[in-house]
Amino acid sequence: MTDITFRSDFSVELIRSSGGDESVLEAMLVSTLKDQGSHDPTNEQNRGRINFLMKGRHGTPFEHNQMVFRVEAPIFVYREWHRHRIGISINEQSGRYTEFEPVFYIPPPHRDICQTGKPGAYIYTPGTEEQINFLKGDMMHQAYRQWESYQERLDKGIALEVARMSMGVNIYSTMYWTANARSIMSFLSLRTRETEETAMFPSKPMWEIDQCARALEVLFADSFPVTHESFVKNKRVSP
Amino acid sequence: MTDITFRSDFSVELIRSSGGDESVLEAMLVSTLKDQGSHDPTNEQNRGRINFLMKGRHGTPFEHNQMVFRVEAPIFVYREWHRHRIGISINEQSGRYTEFEPVFYIPPPHRDICQTGKPGAYIYTPGTEEQINFLKGDMMHQAYRQWESYQERLDKGIALEVARMSMGVNIYSTMYWTANARSIMSFLSLRTRETEETAMFPSKPMWEIDQCARALEVLFADSFPVTHESFVKNKRVSP
Amino acid sequence: MTDITFRSDFSVELIRSSGGDESVLEAMLVSTLKDQGSHDPTNEQNRGRINFLMKGRHGTPFEHNQMVFRVEAPIFVYREWHRHRIGISINEQSGRYTEFEPVFYIPPPHRDICQTGKPGAYIYTPGTEEQINFLKGDMMHQAYRQWESYQERLDKGIALEVARMSMGVNIYSTMYWTANARSIMSFLSLRTRETEETAMFPSKPMWEIDQCARALEVLFADSFPVTHESFVKNKRVSP
Amino acid sequence: MTDITFRSDFSVELIRSSGGDESVLEAMLVSTLKDQGSHDPTNEQNRGRINFLMKGRHGTPFEHNQMVFRVEAPIFVYREWHRHRIGISINEQSGRYTEFEPVFYIPPPHRDICQTGKPGAYIYTPGTEEQINFLKGDMMHQAYRQWESYQERLDKGIALEVARMSMGVNIYSTMYWTANARSIMSFLSLRTRETEETAMFPSKPMWEIDQCARALEVLFADSFPVTHESFVKNKRVSP
Repeated sequence: MTDITFRSDFSVELIRSSGGDESVLEAMLVSTLKDQGSHDPTNEQNRGRINFLMKGRHGTPFEHNQMVFRVEAPIFVYREWHRHRIGISINEQSGRYTEFEPVFYIPPPHRDICQTGKPGAYIYTPGTEEQINFLKGDMMHQAYRQWESYQERLDKGIALEVARMSMGVNIYSTMYWTANARSIMSFLSLRTRETEETAMFPSKPMWEIDQCARALEVLFADSFPVTHESFVKNKRVSP
Repeated sequence: MTDITFRSDFSVELIRSSGGDESVLEAMLVSTLKDQGSHDPTNEQNRGRINFLMKGRHGTPFEHNQMVFRVEAPIFVYREWHRHRIGISINEQSGRYTEFEPVFYIPPPHRDICQTGKPGAYIYTPGTEEQINFLKGDMMHQAYRQWESYQERLDKGIALEVARMSMGVNIYSTMYWTANARSIMSFLSLRTRETEETAMFPSKPMWEIDQCARALEVLFADSFPVTHESFVKNKRVSP
Repeated sequence: MTDITFRSDFSVELIRSSGGDESVLEAMLVSTLKDQGSHDPTNEQNRGRINFLMKGRHGTPFEHNQMVFRVEAPIFVYREWHRHRIGISINEQSGRYTEFEPVFYIPPPHRDICQTGKPGAYIYTPGTEEQINFLKGDMMHQAYRQWESYQERLDKGIALEVARMSMGVNIYSTMYWTANARSIMSFLSLRTRETEETAMFPSKPMWEIDQCARALEVLFADSFPVTHESFVKNKRVSP
Repeated sequence: MTDITFRSDFSVELIRSSGGDESVLEAMLVSTLKDQGSHDPTNEQNRGRINFLMKGRHGTPFEHNQMVFRVEAPIFVYREWHRHRIGISINEQSGRYTEFEPVFYIPPPHRDICQTGKPGAYIYTPGTEEQINFLKGDMMHQAYRQWESYQERLDKGIALEVARMSMGVNIYSTMYWTANARSIMSFLSLRTRETEETAMFPSKPMWEIDQCARALEVLFADSFPVTHESFVKNKRVSP
């Protein structure tokens, strides 16, 4: 039987970061101080300047920098992720030029798999043990069937782009995703699940993309500590 | 047994078109003639002006207009389509908020389903009768399995967004796609299959998106006849 | 003496509007209701839907429409206006291909021409009668000098693009500006002057661009009455 | 008399570069080779891969990198430069928040200052000694007048944003300009003057922005040698 890997996690890895909090000050000060003054983000004055920009939604100074990420996630997550267009670059593994790896997503036991309420205001609740077990079994079953079919089609000489047409949206793919601090904050403001206590505009993303966004946010906070602190303090309104 | 519809075609319908060839002249003439002169695209001088813009790749005058399309296509086609970002707006049916319809794609008999050659230079060739029949049977089989699984999950109270996780990428979805003449020509230059005789930069898109692009091009040519004629004449280089 | 026109006003004229409030519902309902339901923006349910999108900052349904404006304003206003990049198209009269018209801007008497306070928090106050008179006289004087110089250079055979190099930024130019409802609201949220009572994120634009934005907002409200009402009600946060 | 600096040159300085040719291969290989293979741009295979992307106009792999530039140029140059919108970030010295420096542009003696021909096809020719001397004198004269007026307005308590309204478009300003290799090549393809021998789509930019673009191209070639070599070899068609 084919060896399939089932994953319930995601990978968000930092490839490269350029700029950082200094880049925000650098760009701000060319506008307001004729390119003079310290770019050190740790002193109080500059911390206040970054907060002034964040609070007033002066966005452009947050763009002169870049983070490059390597992501592993299922296709249904990318279907949402790729809708972000501005200040963003994407290259993803091609199903036309490469053969997929046999890696499929299954929700972890603690992922709420039931919903109540109306569209736009769903509340997600835990499944019963029976629901969880049924879902897990069925997802594994479907994945085996899809993978066997994919392999059989390729064995019979069917083209890659055709062979993959019945593949489930929970198969994993790899992408490079590149953005600047401003576009990253826009992504975070929409893709982490927050309450009215933590966000001025609470968002209700899908659990899986929330997990990816949280992993990405840790890396962002590490590369842009002052900017990130100010983003959180101002209740996650993207500047 | 569930009633599934298998389609081998796509739907690209014009919802609304605004501007047209006149809009190109309107925007050009404000730059070069202080907003004076006729905007009639059918006279020879204006035809020449549009061709001058196209040939010299002066792109901005082609942006002050808009076409809105309603599209029905499988998800694997949208995966490519959504990578176009500039001058483009998208709303697609949500798998989180709606239940899919049981409509799946199967390649038509004349679609070449085999490939030879290297990545980036594949040549697609017809399948044998055996390959065609096997593929058709297998795709129908997979679709029935996936649809039954989807229905069973929903019946058992699994949330929409979870139930759809094993759905194949050949299920149909609906989208509104909005673009201007410049972004439409950029899309066409990459998504219709052309030889060196018809295109300065031949592109090798997937057959299914080529079919959609051709349908869209007919509507574009109808709304922007002079612009489209010039686009073709200049060998499909997007301005 | 050369005949110069001095203006203290701006022109924002609607050339074409396509879509309207219906387009918002059309795009929303393809996502959430499989393209079913009424697109009539005047019924209560649909009014509520537009407000739901606005409040939750679900922006994409506001993009499938377009307004085209013809604007007359001084260059220093365009210098700010052109910084808006997303969902926006611009063609402006070229100083390389056309000769400017002798039309210069002078602030009207009620425009506050003095400032106090720190950068980023200026307060503008009225000028004294002496300041107002001095400024008016000096602006007229400079304009005459610049126009005479421009004409003399052209008379002596200097190229248009060189002759205009000493031209003041208060000379008028004409542009076509095209945007969708989402990008228009982003523009309005930054370019009309509002207090904390009317805007969640008060902005402090320059007086002249505020005047242009207000004129544009009237036209926007006319073409998108339900969307505009919701924008104002939600304190001008661009979705 | 006020001390004014007249410049005939421009400054384009590299602040930061991230990525380089490796980033192109990195992004390409995740698409076509499942993220495997060497990213070394100097070996023959990878040199060929970059050329394959360039020739076929596969643009996205050129986006996962960034160059940040600090530029000093006159306002009339920025008026063209700022029209580039995609993959580009800008912060420029504000005339509302800062006082200009007394630095004005004057064309150097070898800059062709006369034009013949029709709009869109101007040919620029040298001025006579008389024309050159007249222009130089007049530009200096205008600059002195404008600067004196600006200073007098500020002395009399007029706000910065009002005092600058008669300032000529040849005054210098400073900007940070950030772009990726793809958007840089788009800029270069439009803003350096090339003949049909060197460019597939010859462009006829203004002399001053051509000078800036050439300075920028040297820095780009230094940071992306393989990409730049391929760009030139493929006759400067931006991918």
